[in-house]
Amino acid sequence: MAIEALRWDGEVLWLIDQRRLPLEETWLKLDSCEAVGEAIGDLVVRGAPAIGVSAAFALVLAAKQDPSKVAFEKAAHDLRKVRPTAVNLAWAVDRVSKAVLSVPKEQRRDRAEREAKVIRDDDRAACEAMARNGAELFGRDKRVQVMTHCNAGALATAGIGTALGVVREIHARGCLERLWAGETRPVLQGARLTAWEASQDGIPVTLFADTASGSVFSSGCLDAVIVGADRIAGNGGTANKVGTYNLAVLAARHDVPMYVAAPTSTIDLELTEGASIPIEQRSDDEVTEIAGRRHAPRGITVFNPAFDITPAELIRGIITEKGVAFPPFDDSLRLMCKGV
Amino acid sequence: MAIEALRWDGEVLWLIDQRRLPLEETWLKLDSCEAVGEAIGDLVVRGAPAIGVSAAFALVLAAKQDPSKVAFEKAAHDLRKVRPTAVNLAWAVDRVSKAVLSVPKEQRRDRAEREAKVIRDDDRAACEAMARNGAELFGRDKRVQVMTHCNAGALATAGIGTALGVVREIHARGCLERLWAGETRPVLQGARLTAWEASQDGIPVTLFADTASGSVFSSGCLDAVIVGADRIAGNGGTANKVGTYNLAVLAARHDVPMYVAAPTSTIDLELTEGASIPIEQRSDDEVTEIAGRRHAPRGITVFNPAFDITPAELIRGIITEKGVAFPPFDDSLRLMCKGV
Repeated sequence: MAIEALRWDGEVLWLIDQRRLPLEETWLKLDSCEAVGEAIGDLVVRGAPAIGVSAAFALVLAAKQDPSKVAFEKAAHDLRKVRPTAVNLAWAVDRVSKAVLSVPKEQRRDRAEREAKVIRDDDRAACEAMARNGAELFGRDKRVQVMTHCNAGALATAGIGTALGVVREIHARGCLERLWAGETRPVLQGARLTAWEASQDGIPVTLFADTASGSVFSSGCLDAVIVGADRIAGNGGTANKVGTYNLAVLAARHDVPMYVAAPTSTIDLELTEGASIPIEQRSDDEVTEIAGRRHAPRGITVFNPAFDITPAELIRGIITEKGVAFPPFDDSLRLMCKGV
Repeated sequence: MAIEALRWDGEVLWLIDQRRLPLEETWLKLDSCEAVGEAIGDLVVRGAPAIGVSAAFALVLAAKQDPSKVAFEKAAHDLRKVRPTAVNLAWAVDRVSKAVLSVPKEQRRDRAEREAKVIRDDDRAACEAMARNGAELFGRDKRVQVMTHCNAGALATAGIGTALGVVREIHARGCLERLWAGETRPVLQGARLTAWEASQDGIPVTLFADTASGSVFSSGCLDAVIVGADRIAGNGGTANKVGTYNLAVLAARHDVPMYVAAPTSTIDLELTEGASIPIEQRSDDEVTEIAGRRHAPRGITVFNPAFDITPAELIRGIITEKGVAFPPFDDSLRLMCKGV
């Protein structure tokens, strides 16, 4: 059975609780916009595209609860602020809001639902297209070893994933030798989610602590690094899960190509460079505690950014549903976003 | 009170159980060579110099138990194999063995004890000398921010530490703005040991997940990276806790000097280059479980090297008790090891 992050049953949004995976598969039933917002903030659901789709359905619940312009705009405003880095959240909220507020009050809930479903279905289709476009980069002549970071898979999207969608397609073509998954501290999405998705799908996967990434590069086995993105600036600079930049610097040293896979909804042409992307700082507990048990001493400070910025010069290509953009990204991304 | 990794009371070796720090300060009493060997293998005590000193005292227990040449050599042989990367273990075993076997059977226990105490006291003095030599690199005119990795502190030596000894001295001179400590998965020596040592000593310390190291570099705040070493080859190539190489590559990109602090007993002139240093692979559980609870799925493979190799070209200087060696290390290290 296909792995899913979310399900809309026509009335409420169901989210698999990703904090408990892979040990427990618990589905949470969310029947209000606020509840979905909280779930996004608490990382029940994460991954830029999945956050966008969840937010879209959250607004269906908002429009049902109170379709008045004032109430709906308040709900949309609050939801938009829950996580600052992934542009897909703001993008989905804006798109559903525009659609909803263009119709009379009594049609708003249904209009929101129609728009949310389009966003979900588009995301699913974008994953399939990215997978094909990305896999084409590697041809069919040799088996390749790919490193990824965090989880940019089915659990991060409404489809088969962005970076992991590409990996799935390479595997489906019989061309994947091995997937290398970094555990991705502090939240361990690599160990808990990516390794799980891969093992569920029979993809040969090797897990390593983030500290061992350099050793994987040094071993000389890697053909590429493929990661997702939370926001891509106009020049190609990319915000993604913290630790992505470390891999990009290692990849450059070892001349391993680094690809970013993300739907065009992740591209924010309004920002001219990666350094302008706002980076969410998360709570100290994520670093000082594991499974509710503190292992670090008291009386220290903690630096816990959720994302980092990889400058465009370290990225070989950006895989989207419309094709692969190559440097100079200023031009290629603009063209890609224009074309429909 | 000074932080200590080990105490020899004239009869048995006491080791603080570093696996339980900082939550519990439990001292384990070890009265046989095998027990010390097991404790080293299980990471009760770690850090190349501390392993060397512990092994030296383990051989006192061996000589007491059975001072015959055959029995002693068997004990020394087994102990030597417990961990392969840190050269200090083999170095201390060889040194004590040579001393012990040069005297008649009835004097062997006492001869071993005398030699072990010299090794311990020399290590303590080497830490003090390294601290001074390292701190001199930074002058006294400005306050600096230093990143370290794993734990190269009092808990890793018989003294104030190697890399952390340098940091302590910079702090004592009023020149330390901040210590940045990476948590150092999988065993979290940075979060549990380095952050604890720093907080005990009133050193301002900021802890971060290893994935965030790139973001610390990008912030532009760092003046240096100082790490310890488990073995240094003749050309300066250095084996140290896995993740050190990642920091070295980041440091090079950001033009932050990377220093290695280690006593000359860590230098292995018999190996001409870092790539020849044997790297210990540790058990999967260190990565797949935390505090005995598994968070990764079944059916995956794990890559868990305990150390990595930083090539000499990425190292600005090697701080020893005899001074700081600069490139080309082939010459400077050889000179440093010759001089007494």
